[in-house]
Amino acid sequence: MNQLTSFMHRLCDNAQEETLPRFRTGTIVTNKLDAAFDPVTEGDKNAEKIIREMINKTYPEHGILGEEFGNENLDAEYIWIIDPIDGTRAFISGIPVWGTLICLAKNAHPTLGIMHQPFTGERFFSDGTSSWYLGPGVSSQTKIATRDCGALANAVMMTTSPRIFSPQDKPAYDRVENAVKLARYGTDCYAYCMLASGNIDLVVEANLNAYDVAALIPIVENAGGCMTDWQGKSIDLLNIGEGHILACANKNLQKEAIALLNE
Amino acid sequence: MNQLTSFMHRLCDNAQEETLPRFRTGTIVTNKLDAAFDPVTEGDKNAEKIIREMINKTYPEHGILGEEFGNENLDAEYIWIIDPIDGTRAFISGIPVWGTLICLAKNAHPTLGIMHQPFTGERFFSDGTSSWYLGPGVSSQTKIATRDCGALANAVMMTTSPRIFSPQDKPAYDRVENAVKLARYGTDCYAYCMLASGNIDLVVEANLNAYDVAALIPIVENAGGCMTDWQGKSIDLLNIGEGHILACANKNLQKEAIALLNE
Repeated sequence: MNQLTSFMHRLCDNAQEETLPRFRTGTIVTNKLDAAFDPVTEGDKNAEKIIREMINKTYPEHGILGEEFGNENLDAEYIWIIDPIDGTRAFISGIPVWGTLICLAKNAHPTLGIMHQPFTGERFFSDGTSSWYLGPGVSSQTKIATRDCGALANAVMMTTSPRIFSPQDKPAYDRVENAVKLARYGTDCYAYCMLASGNIDLVVEANLNAYDVAALIPIVENAGGCMTDWQGKSIDLLNIGEGHILACANKNLQKEAIALLNE
Repeated sequence: MNQLTSFMHRLCDNAQEETLPRFRTGTIVTNKLDAAFDPVTEGDKNAEKIIREMINKTYPEHGILGEEFGNENLDAEYIWIIDPIDGTRAFISGIPVWGTLICLAKNAHPTLGIMHQPFTGERFFSDGTSSWYLGPGVSSQTKIATRDCGALANAVMMTTSPRIFSPQDKPAYDRVENAVKLARYGTDCYAYCMLASGNIDLVVEANLNAYDVAALIPIVENAGGCMTDWQGKSIDLLNIGEGHILACANKNLQKEAIALLNE
């Protein structure tokens, strides 16, 4: 494992000390937005603080883009993109599909990425070349790859909730949902890891932020999948627009999905 | 732990041998219904076979009601009610919120129940008096209890999917969803265990079968919650009707939810 990938794992080790003890134990929740219910836990904030401290100490020349405490030095060649708890709603309701997301981007291109689920002990990550799984059922890190279901009509799809789509986007999403074999909700970052490990076939989402997706891009792409916006264009992490995300196990599925999304 | 509760755990130990090795490993899926996609895995069938064999050998006078292989001796005083993999869709898409559900009913009243999630190693169960958790984070079985969120407006709700409701039932469900603080989808049997362990506040579902809910009733009720149909009536396991299920952390929440469901 290269030095930066090892460092990424150590960031997760330390973040876990702030997240896991607060999972399912009378979590303190405050509202981040007045209008909508958007819970932020102490764990979220403390985990990001610890990750930032470690990065600033070890790689002071690197930039940071994080969910809770904003941006530092985004002109740097290397930028860490952090979501300490992706899936805060899953976290506060006890469901272990939340994860700590950490990405290292080089020249704004996501290169390394990890999704760590501390309760199950799962890590899905990419070292920049391949994608790997560590967790229950394996004794050492195991290479993961997307599967080929043949056609969209055979696909298993996931999305966090049908309510993440704006009224403008909903019909486009619905066309894809109606075309697949099975759609599952309530999956957050876990969905992309199930795609990268060949358990499902596509993920369609909207209104996501850079820190929600950056870490997942190398995991999906280095497992053989593709992760773009709804037009098939690369995701611009510094200007993510409407946050339209389409992750597919392969190019054929992507082509079918893009056609439906843009009908 | 009494003899029957220990036996219930042994049933789970053995069922796990048939379910866990098939999780996330190119699961063989066949369609049970022609009209809808309702996957049945080998794991589902083999796990139920093993559970039935153990019951028939140890308690030949007991009856069995199971998802995959029908009913045996339902006139018996004691009936085991089995769903070897509740949440087959979660199972085939890699999400660890499926579970093995086993209930022992006495005179058609659910008395003992267990939900076992083999991937995470979690067991939520009731010995007929209290409800308990065994799994990551605890060194021995730990008593669980529902929480009191004060009012439906503060409640976290779960349901497996908004699409499980018939067009007749959907408006009633929507009234409750619109009244709560947060609704999560994609939870299957796990939702009821999160309720029993004080992580969420209510579950509203429909079109469930006896084997989907029997094991969960003692877990919820002996943790301080209530689990009834949408009118607040006890669930009749031998004649479950429309499979309307309302599980609540306490009577006050139940009262609020029933009012909205029957508006």
